[in-house]
Amino acid sequence: MFKSTLRLVQCSFKNELAARNSSTIGFIGIGNMGTHMAGHLVKKGEKVKVFDISQEAAKTVKGAQVCSSPEEVAQNSDIVFTMLPNGDIVKKTLLEDGVLKSLPKKSLLVDSSTIEPSVSQELFNISQENDVRFIDAPVSGGVTGAEAGTLAFMVGGNQEDVEYVKPILLHMGARVFHCGKAGAGQIAKLSNNLILGVCMMGVSEGMNLGIKAGLDPKVLHEIVNVSTGRCWSSETYSPVPNLLPNVPSSNDYKGGFNIRLMSKDLALAERTAVNSETSVPLAATAHQIYRALISNGYGDKDFSVIYKFLSGKK
Amino acid sequence: MFKSTLRLVQCSFKNELAARNSSTIGFIGIGNMGTHMAGHLVKKGEKVKVFDISQEAAKTVKGAQVCSSPEEVAQNSDIVFTMLPNGDIVKKTLLEDGVLKSLPKKSLLVDSSTIEPSVSQELFNISQENDVRFIDAPVSGGVTGAEAGTLAFMVGGNQEDVEYVKPILLHMGARVFHCGKAGAGQIAKLSNNLILGVCMMGVSEGMNLGIKAGLDPKVLHEIVNVSTGRCWSSETYSPVPNLLPNVPSSNDYKGGFNIRLMSKDLALAERTAVNSETSVPLAATAHQIYRALISNGYGDKDFSVIYKFLSGKK
Amino acid sequence: MFKSTLRLVQCSFKNELAARNSSTIGFIGIGNMGTHMAGHLVKKGEKVKVFDISQEAAKTVKGAQVCSSPEEVAQNSDIVFTMLPNGDIVKKTLLEDGVLKSLPKKSLLVDSSTIEPSVSQELFNISQENDVRFIDAPVSGGVTGAEAGTLAFMVGGNQEDVEYVKPILLHMGARVFHCGKAGAGQIAKLSNNLILGVCMMGVSEGMNLGIKAGLDPKVLHEIVNVSTGRCWSSETYSPVPNLLPNVPSSNDYKGGFNIRLMSKDLALAERTAVNSETSVPLAATAHQIYRALISNGYGDKDFSVIYKFLSGKK
Amino acid sequence: MFKSTLRLVQCSFKNELAARNSSTIGFIGIGNMGTHMAGHLVKKGEKVKVFDISQEAAKTVKGAQVCSSPEEVAQNSDIVFTMLPNGDIVKKTLLEDGVLKSLPKKSLLVDSSTIEPSVSQELFNISQENDVRFIDAPVSGGVTGAEAGTLAFMVGGNQEDVEYVKPILLHMGARVFHCGKAGAGQIAKLSNNLILGVCMMGVSEGMNLGIKAGLDPKVLHEIVNVSTGRCWSSETYSPVPNLLPNVPSSNDYKGGFNIRLMSKDLALAERTAVNSETSVPLAATAHQIYRALISNGYGDKDFSVIYKFLSGKK
Repeated sequence: MFKSTLRLVQCSFKNELAARNSSTIGFIGIGNMGTHMAGHLVKKGEKVKVFDISQEAAKTVKGAQVCSSPEEVAQNSDIVFTMLPNGDIVKKTLLEDGVLKSLPKKSLLVDSSTIEPSVSQELFNISQENDVRFIDAPVSGGVTGAEAGTLAFMVGGNQEDVEYVKPILLHMGARVFHCGKAGAGQIAKLSNNLILGVCMMGVSEGMNLGIKAGLDPKVLHEIVNVSTGRCWSSETYSPVPNLLPNVPSSNDYKGGFNIRLMSKDLALAERTAVNSETSVPLAATAHQIYRALISNGYGDKDFSVIYKFLSGKK
Repeated sequence: MFKSTLRLVQCSFKNELAARNSSTIGFIGIGNMGTHMAGHLVKKGEKVKVFDISQEAAKTVKGAQVCSSPEEVAQNSDIVFTMLPNGDIVKKTLLEDGVLKSLPKKSLLVDSSTIEPSVSQELFNISQENDVRFIDAPVSGGVTGAEAGTLAFMVGGNQEDVEYVKPILLHMGARVFHCGKAGAGQIAKLSNNLILGVCMMGVSEGMNLGIKAGLDPKVLHEIVNVSTGRCWSSETYSPVPNLLPNVPSSNDYKGGFNIRLMSKDLALAERTAVNSETSVPLAATAHQIYRALISNGYGDKDFSVIYKFLSGKK
Repeated sequence: MFKSTLRLVQCSFKNELAARNSSTIGFIGIGNMGTHMAGHLVKKGEKVKVFDISQEAAKTVKGAQVCSSPEEVAQNSDIVFTMLPNGDIVKKTLLEDGVLKSLPKKSLLVDSSTIEPSVSQELFNISQENDVRFIDAPVSGGVTGAEAGTLAFMVGGNQEDVEYVKPILLHMGARVFHCGKAGAGQIAKLSNNLILGVCMMGVSEGMNLGIKAGLDPKVLHEIVNVSTGRCWSSETYSPVPNLLPNVPSSNDYKGGFNIRLMSKDLALAERTAVNSETSVPLAATAHQIYRALISNGYGDKDFSVIYKFLSGKK
Repeated sequence: MFKSTLRLVQCSFKNELAARNSSTIGFIGIGNMGTHMAGHLVKKGEKVKVFDISQEAAKTVKGAQVCSSPEEVAQNSDIVFTMLPNGDIVKKTLLEDGVLKSLPKKSLLVDSSTIEPSVSQELFNISQENDVRFIDAPVSGGVTGAEAGTLAFMVGGNQEDVEYVKPILLHMGARVFHCGKAGAGQIAKLSNNLILGVCMMGVSEGMNLGIKAGLDPKVLHEIVNVSTGRCWSSETYSPVPNLLPNVPSSNDYKGGFNIRLMSKDLALAERTAVNSETSVPLAATAHQIYRALISNGYGDKDFSVIYKFLSGKK
């Protein structure tokens, strides 16, 4: 059912890129995510040029050519990825630091940063005016997924561009969703993460309620997972310690998806909601509570630490 | 995995009840749920006595003996079910209307109403003092599940009592969870429904956000269902019309789980939270918004109507 | 303007009680509030009998007769006050501990506890059936007001009963509001305290926002106090330390109105809201956040400590 | 007390502007507010040049010179006011439409729009680089205050600039608060309006709770106004119809402060909060509920219409 309606780019058998002998891929932004993503490209045999404001960081991608500026990355590249902290930095990099001007005509910009959809749309339009192609391709899966090469890409842009770049995306990830036109990748990611941020807090509240009232955490966990409260946050990422192995809650809420990143995504979702006069009451409440946790010393933890806060366990 | 840790009552092979030739089962409260539940008991060959304050309602259970008082139901019954609107009515029925006094010693009271866990615990204690057994056994699955005989029972009480009654519960439902001691069935149900009430609103907000921002509802639905936003409310009960057949949202939010019942469960969850000084911020916000919908004309709708309210579609 | 529309009991010139020579007043519940309230009655020359489950506490009211049971307090008293933690205890004291049965006919019960309005109404009705008069008369002003004798009484019940007891109330307080019939005193108190609980959090959020963004706390405080954000919580009880002398925030949030009491009042307000299907979204959110603070170590502080929590100052 | 700590610009007796014979004042943005504000300047004898994208609108200021572009307004003006819908439009007007380039050196830009504080700070810096002075001076008082000339100006910028322009501001308003350096006017306004938006909803919830539970609206109104729930929203702008004359609630919620404007201010407050990692939970919840009202047909009403929504009165 899924494949028929979602425009998954399944049949890229006769793909342009697959036929290339010597394309060049640029990668700007070698942080926790970028280092693994660019690393996968190198391992898959691609010719990769990288840049980061930290030369140290840039050098972590073994086998890639380290450039001294974003502009240098852009020159003669067929595809340039950006993986940057926010929309202002993406705009500055593409527009002020010379990437867009230096890119060959018809080349493809792939922004995998999570930014406001309206900025993605703006960058799509400016790119088009410069005869450069642009897609937004934010990812889900976090650092773990980046390292394992199992990211999911949510992509907005023209169908032919998505098909063109899909084999490259699959070097770094396991799934590619074409969500619609420019900005749609961002919108899909933010919509999903809004639901995630709310459900995680809902699971934390429900589990805390039951456990405080005397239920065995394991019993409640299992009941929820086969009942109407079933959700990803409970089944695979339970915020209650020691119900699941290898989740942040079982490791003092280390690793995983930082509460600051969840707050960032919720802030972006709310800005998008403001633009369309859309009301998101639970997301907004959840956002502010996550933010209050940051003010109270939980800023370095996985977002499931909301359970610890609610339960008051020290 | 599930079976090993959850005390599912699997092995009732040598069950007392199975051995009985002529036990009698009482059923008090023949509403939308009770009529189907008692009906299943009759169909499975049990001897059933029923009572409801509406004689009309009581008569809907074909093949059952209609009694003129709760007391009459209790006399000579081995098991008496109650399926009533709230804790005050359950208490009045059992304590003031003579059920507890009229029940044979060692007989079993099964309260399938959804009420405050502390009231279930109180009734368990009073029953014990009267040499009557008591379990709380609220259900999930709604009217549809009651009619189809696929309810899930969440049970609190003594292990031997749960084993004893399990074959009877399975006449009316598909699953029996023994959640812990007295009140634990209520706590488990409320904890789960709290998560449900929050997740449904989260899904409604996220879907509305994406759709208002231009995404195809089908595409977003499918992405969420394979991503971290995945949950029962999205996969099997989507609040967005016409994504799934046979769900209330595709039928003008008719049927399903009434928004008043969700509000009732959230109110009970919050009372339970107050007793243990537990904070449930999203549940409380969700509760009040569901309640605002009731004030604004949505009181007869399924609780997924929150999507319609948020999207402002008339 | 105020006096004309609010049924303040102004003209009690020909007051029965004033004419009495030797009435007796009982006081049950000698806690932080009760000790001061009963003390004022003694100081004003009333003959006072007291009871508390702690004999130690009861003895703190110098000049009062300490009784060994609530029943003993009731015998031969003209008026009996109750000042108890919650509705269940009030009910038990009046109905099970023999107060109602032992009171002389036509005597007056004054419940100054803060409890659910529906319980006040129930007690009014039961009292009437027993030929005893009943009013609910919860107070505002806290321990400070109790000690200073400046409490405000919000009273529900019959007009003649309010007029009868008003001189006695004014021994302990500065104002008496007759809010309506039985329960109306509780409703008025809860409605007001709901607004208070919300405004205090609103002021804390707004002040924290401005101060974090660089404003001088004094300047912002003064602007708010002459602008549309003006409110009691800002003008006379600012949650920001060192803007006002003699408020809890300037004394490490000690004293004042404990966050547990605010949480209790918000819980009662929400129960009252449930009964009338009324939505109180901000109150509910505020309630849960106050409650989360209790779980995180702020349980002994004044409710204005929400500012400290939001600002993250340690 | 107030005057001593708040840097109100009291003693501008020897003011430069007062000494001028023939300064020129520009005014860009002749909407509901601007038409009255510019009109007051004309009435006070100032030489005024105006521009609006609607020539119709610009012509409503009798006695002012209508310009054909923002640039024309700027040329030879000593002071230029902007009163525009949002930060993007202010930036475009000043930076792209030539205002900053055309202004005489040392002249003063006064932005009375309500925009993000960070944008005000950016514009202050750019102006300084161009040897033009800049202050942010958002107003409170609404259209009524603009018409009556009783606005309050909350000003951020250099002390000497505030003193310089104060006599001009007092042509249009009754009070001038110097809140701090660049952006401080915006921060003060947003902080205050956050409190306002929360308190109004709190008052609406509390009044609705009491009235639904049976209290006389007048009695409750008067009790709140002399109790701890006292606030501007209750005392002078009650959301409950027919308690006060001449407020929007008594006129079907027409006029006043539109719910979209309140939503805009809360959105700006939240963005400012995000920048400083500050949590504003009640403001965020209130914001989303106001926004839900817009989606449900209340978009043209005063923000106190929240009472009508909560009470469910049609």
